[in-house]
Amino acid sequence: MRISGRREYYGDGMSGFRHVALFRWVEGTTVSQQEEVAARLSRLPGRIPQIRSYSLGTNAGVTPGGYDFAVVADFADRADYLVYRDHPDHRAVLDEVIKPLIGERAAIQYDL
Amino acid sequence: MRISGRREYYGDGMSGFRHVALFRWVEGTTVSQQEEVAARLSRLPGRIPQIRSYSLGTNAGVTPGGYDFAVVADFADRADYLVYRDHPDHRAVLDEVIKPLIGERAAIQYDL
Repeated sequence: MRISGRREYYGDGMSGFRHVALFRWVEGTTVSQQEEVAARLSRLPGRIPQIRSYSLGTNAGVTPGGYDFAVVADFADRADYLVYRDHPDHRAVLDEVIKPLIGERAAIQYDL
Repeated sequence: MRISGRREYYGDGMSGFRHVALFRWVEGTTVSQQEEVAARLSRLPGRIPQIRSYSLGTNAGVTPGGYDFAVVADFADRADYLVYRDHPDHRAVLDEVIKPLIGERAAIQYDL
């Protein structure tokens, strides 16, 4: 479901399928480790053509209590999301870089 | 940070500021209550012109362990996000409809 405000940011009104994952890193996680997560993830759109749009973000520090890091990935449909989810390059980033740093993780997938 | 895949979904490459909130509802939350949350939130873009794009989603049931409901709201900048965060119409939905149903909540704000 997508509701537009005064401006239609997405422009084309396309449907799709969205994956959102939020992470809170374990205490002691370094800036260097966080940069490695972002760097490794940022290579995935070049390797997994099913990714339509890929947005990574670090908490801007505006509202207290938030998670540390976000991934918002859009796909044409759930089949393309599943290709991403199970892709060996994605699993490698998860296993090698992300999982050891996870304090908490919250995720959802929904139809756009 | 936004990384494009083979297609640039966002089209205009605009910068901005994103708020993401994921919710896991308390046990016993009814479909009717969830529909009320979505209905009340979906009126906010018409009342808060600072909302650039507003996306609401219910877990598609593809990957186990996910949260129940997502809000992804995009703004021109953090000042516009703060207008939304503190807007009385938004606070009313939170206080009257959402807060009594929250089992878990995960949120982040980040620069696009």
